[in-house]
Amino acid sequence: MTGRVRIPADGLRAYVAALLEGLGLPGAHAADAAGALVDADLAGVDTHGVRLLPPYARRLRAGAIAVRPQLRVLSRTGAVSTLDGGNGLGQVVAPWAVRHSIEVAREVGAAVTTVRRSNHLGALGSFTRVAAEQGMVCFLTQNTRANMAPAGGREAAVGNNPFSYALPAPGAPVVLDLSCSAVARSNIDLAAERGEPIPEGWALAPDGRPTTDAREALLGAVLPFAGHKGSGLAVVMGALAGVLSGANFGAAVPPLADHGRERDLGHFLLLVDVRALGDPDDLAVRMGRYVGEISDSAPAPGNDSVRVPGAGTEARRRERLARGVPLPGTLLAALDELADDVGVPAAVRPQPTRSEEVL
Amino acid sequence: MTGRVRIPADGLRAYVAALLEGLGLPGAHAADAAGALVDADLAGVDTHGVRLLPPYARRLRAGAIAVRPQLRVLSRTGAVSTLDGGNGLGQVVAPWAVRHSIEVAREVGAAVTTVRRSNHLGALGSFTRVAAEQGMVCFLTQNTRANMAPAGGREAAVGNNPFSYALPAPGAPVVLDLSCSAVARSNIDLAAERGEPIPEGWALAPDGRPTTDAREALLGAVLPFAGHKGSGLAVVMGALAGVLSGANFGAAVPPLADHGRERDLGHFLLLVDVRALGDPDDLAVRMGRYVGEISDSAPAPGNDSVRVPGAGTEARRRERLARGVPLPGTLLAALDELADDVGVPAAVRPQPTRSEEVL
Repeated sequence: MTGRVRIPADGLRAYVAALLEGLGLPGAHAADAAGALVDADLAGVDTHGVRLLPPYARRLRAGAIAVRPQLRVLSRTGAVSTLDGGNGLGQVVAPWAVRHSIEVAREVGAAVTTVRRSNHLGALGSFTRVAAEQGMVCFLTQNTRANMAPAGGREAAVGNNPFSYALPAPGAPVVLDLSCSAVARSNIDLAAERGEPIPEGWALAPDGRPTTDAREALLGAVLPFAGHKGSGLAVVMGALAGVLSGANFGAAVPPLADHGRERDLGHFLLLVDVRALGDPDDLAVRMGRYVGEISDSAPAPGNDSVRVPGAGTEARRRERLARGVPLPGTLLAALDELADDVGVPAAVRPQPTRSEEVL
Repeated sequence: MTGRVRIPADGLRAYVAALLEGLGLPGAHAADAAGALVDADLAGVDTHGVRLLPPYARRLRAGAIAVRPQLRVLSRTGAVSTLDGGNGLGQVVAPWAVRHSIEVAREVGAAVTTVRRSNHLGALGSFTRVAAEQGMVCFLTQNTRANMAPAGGREAAVGNNPFSYALPAPGAPVVLDLSCSAVARSNIDLAAERGEPIPEGWALAPDGRPTTDAREALLGAVLPFAGHKGSGLAVVMGALAGVLSGANFGAAVPPLADHGRERDLGHFLLLVDVRALGDPDDLAVRMGRYVGEISDSAPAPGNDSVRVPGAGTEARRRERLARGVPLPGTLLAALDELADDVGVPAAVRPQPTRSEEVL
């Protein structure tokens, strides 16, 4: 049992922004990054929310991520832009790249944008959802360090390269946010800590045999979802984000904990202005009907409802906006320690609305 | 055991084109469709190759697919086009849509194209590969009739909506071609014919319980690959291809065997001209290095090699170009019967290079 507290989202956002400013980020960059991190927590992607701030702070302070990145448009050919993120935080680079792409798409109907010299993005759905709320169909992928065995392979030769789609829909956008591995590595970490076995299909042992031993799996390689399908998607996403963009790719990407080198991760964005596709009102009616056909269909035994992608996230977001973002007490303590270090005044520290004990 | 024969690809292509012309298609349309169908056979996607001609011929003769479709560009806004396939064969509409999109991408760097009033596409990789061979990154998806249970559901409320990516690479393009179901329905048909069980995870029984009984599965619904991941992708692909395009979607799409109604299927295409992303030679070197890192990595026990998407297809293509396309003798007989019906002269009928007995 670890204690958790609930923090109002607005107060948490202001606190994270103040911490990032304390680390040296310009105010606008700090606000973008705080928005993305807290949004991940609101969406329930706790592993990619404010919890990332302490490791990011270590990279920022070591100079491995630029606190004041030079964000540059390298080229623009009609709908296609190539951007350089100046080794900024991914949560600084991505909102800027999305804003740039929205401008391009408003002008020529669609935008394809590649980004090099960026960093870890966290929850990709935070960025695509923002675009969808502005009337854009949005696709975003990012490459990662080679951390997964491709289908038929035993070595970590391909990234689990996450990707996200968001589409405008009545009520809330349809948002899909996936990585190409069968499971996030954190699940294997957890099983190893608890001394529990993992299901088949999650990972290989170092010799390439399938394993259910979590400790052996941590020394081996995680597996893609759905065999050659997930593996093929990982290869394609890595090419879009890492190769086309001119970024680093594969085994050349340093691990997050290596503070000696820039990671140079890449992104690939597609945005389509729905107004270029037809009457937006008509499209909204069609999307509502499409989503309704799926969500109103009969659930299988053991399920309450059939959910379209993003519906569960949206429910969590509403609950957390109302009741506050749940954070482990240990994480809040780590943030407070960082606040002391970088001189954030005590008045900015958010007050928990309530504490609770959870697993 | 059924007998198979080998037919040289060129002769088969000319024969299929003559059959389609005999059915009333204009010469250029017949050539496009024959190219796509034979290409699927060359790629080893036998279920989506020339085998589709007899059911397509039935739809064409019943007037359910237009033999002389009016192919229309409905709108063009910068990079975004909306097209109307005039209820033509998918293999006529898609090559036209790809050619249109290549022109747009050459002009403004990228093209996003939606298509309504089209039909079944067969093997999507046939179309994306052609674009990649012309220096385009290409993504294509098509919606299908609702034929799959979404994650948590028991009814066939979402299509298994196939999609394909192709990227230019040294040697041959990287080509990924997937559908969102755990397995093609034809595999369940086959198991039912043979009285064999199917693995868990392929399908639900009509009451929504998982089943390993192939006959029960045929009355129920197939499942997406990788649970909510494949289900979410299916929802997104259906929205891109069916909803944004203004096409038919979901349960409103008539089955292939219903000859009384137009199906009005939709497509969504993205093309990016690699020249808009940077120096194509530099990009080719990077892609070669990326693909090499994966394909040169160590295979897992029981595997000869690690293959990137499209490598297996490319090997089959070379073998079949050299030795001829293997076709069941029964299929060749059906084509000959169609040739008699539509008055294709005997001189056009290809001669098998050799016959063989296979399972």
